[in-house]
Amino acid sequence: MAEVNNNAKKSSDLVIVDEDELNQEVQTNGFVPEAKESFLYDNALIESLSFDHLTCFNPKISPAQPGMNLRVRSLGSGDYERGFLDLLAQLTKVGEISKSDFLKRFNAMKSCQGTYHVTVIEDTTTQEIIGAATLVIEQKFIRGCAKKGIIEEVVVSDRYRGRQLGKLIVATLIEMGKALGCYKVTLNCTDQMIKFYCSLGFTQEEGNANFLQIRM
Amino acid sequence: MAEVNNNAKKSSDLVIVDEDELNQEVQTNGFVPEAKESFLYDNALIESLSFDHLTCFNPKISPAQPGMNLRVRSLGSGDYERGFLDLLAQLTKVGEISKSDFLKRFNAMKSCQGTYHVTVIEDTTTQEIIGAATLVIEQKFIRGCAKKGIIEEVVVSDRYRGRQLGKLIVATLIEMGKALGCYKVTLNCTDQMIKFYCSLGFTQEEGNANFLQIRM
Repeated sequence: MAEVNNNAKKSSDLVIVDEDELNQEVQTNGFVPEAKESFLYDNALIESLSFDHLTCFNPKISPAQPGMNLRVRSLGSGDYERGFLDLLAQLTKVGEISKSDFLKRFNAMKSCQGTYHVTVIEDTTTQEIIGAATLVIEQKFIRGCAKKGIIEEVVVSDRYRGRQLGKLIVATLIEMGKALGCYKVTLNCTDQMIKFYCSLGFTQEEGNANFLQIRM
Repeated sequence: MAEVNNNAKKSSDLVIVDEDELNQEVQTNGFVPEAKESFLYDNALIESLSFDHLTCFNPKISPAQPGMNLRVRSLGSGDYERGFLDLLAQLTKVGEISKSDFLKRFNAMKSCQGTYHVTVIEDTTTQEIIGAATLVIEQKFIRGCAKKGIIEEVVVSDRYRGRQLGKLIVATLIEMGKALGCYKVTLNCTDQMIKFYCSLGFTQEEGNANFLQIRM
């Protein structure tokens, strides 16, 4: 646990992405070489997670072995070119976002140390992002200055359904929340998704399951 | 709007609280002099909010005029001594939190620029914190790199009920979310609180009002 927290701390050190350099690389060969890439958080955090105790996968998969030619990792600064935003567009409105907008938001998230854990699944044969979900860590004063995890924007490409990848990415975020010391992890979902999340251990607590919003 | 955002930006400049200095002040006179105090965000953000269009208050109150001897402001580094945690204990478990724990969490929140807006109501006659609520700003990629507001830990001291202060602090956070450019503000609440939040404009969206959690 102490080791995981160290990793998490290291993961959120600020690294400024050199946008010109990235753009140049992109023009050269279509993708950012991973050695030059900045990750939103340290991938060692994912590598530290154990799925040994989980019984909800059949066949058994884990972030370390997600399936043939797949990789689970932190969002990278080069994922703009790998279709990360096209994938989000399968979930909700994304709109026009330039590479510069993407990097600005990426760096703003990264500068909030230990807060944003945008996690993706990459098809390593095509370098395409085919799954994504976000764990936001909220710091509180209650419960001895506790942390709460919030899961947002869970999506798996429609071409990759039936491989337990939605379950895999959500279970990864739950275990990450535990490793980071959260006292709970919460989410909001549509009626159709209740069964899916409950199969992963989420519950609607009696008298306390109401999600309200105001759209501006 | 541009001006508000400037204020918001200024509000999150990092100011390190000198703990020894604070402790010394506390020993001297029981309270931290406000001139030496650090605020979580710039109070100019609250001062910029207009309540002119709101019809839900009778009699009319606002963050600028919350009632006799009351003040609405950002959480301050001296609010540990002003009973901020005792107030939170009226809402949920708080546990043992030292002044050092409090300041550590306060500074960690402050270093996440523009994220944590813990807002309090102070009784200026007793210097006691008698109301509090938090607006967390979550940064997203969806909707053109949008921001979402999340309201948490809303509490008014039982000795100050019946003065519209719960409504006042929640309405303040909604207007703050608008001023900071959020596309929506959300919250989770118990069954009993639905009516209260709906009176402030919140809705349970058809098919999308489910709040799920896993406790660790």
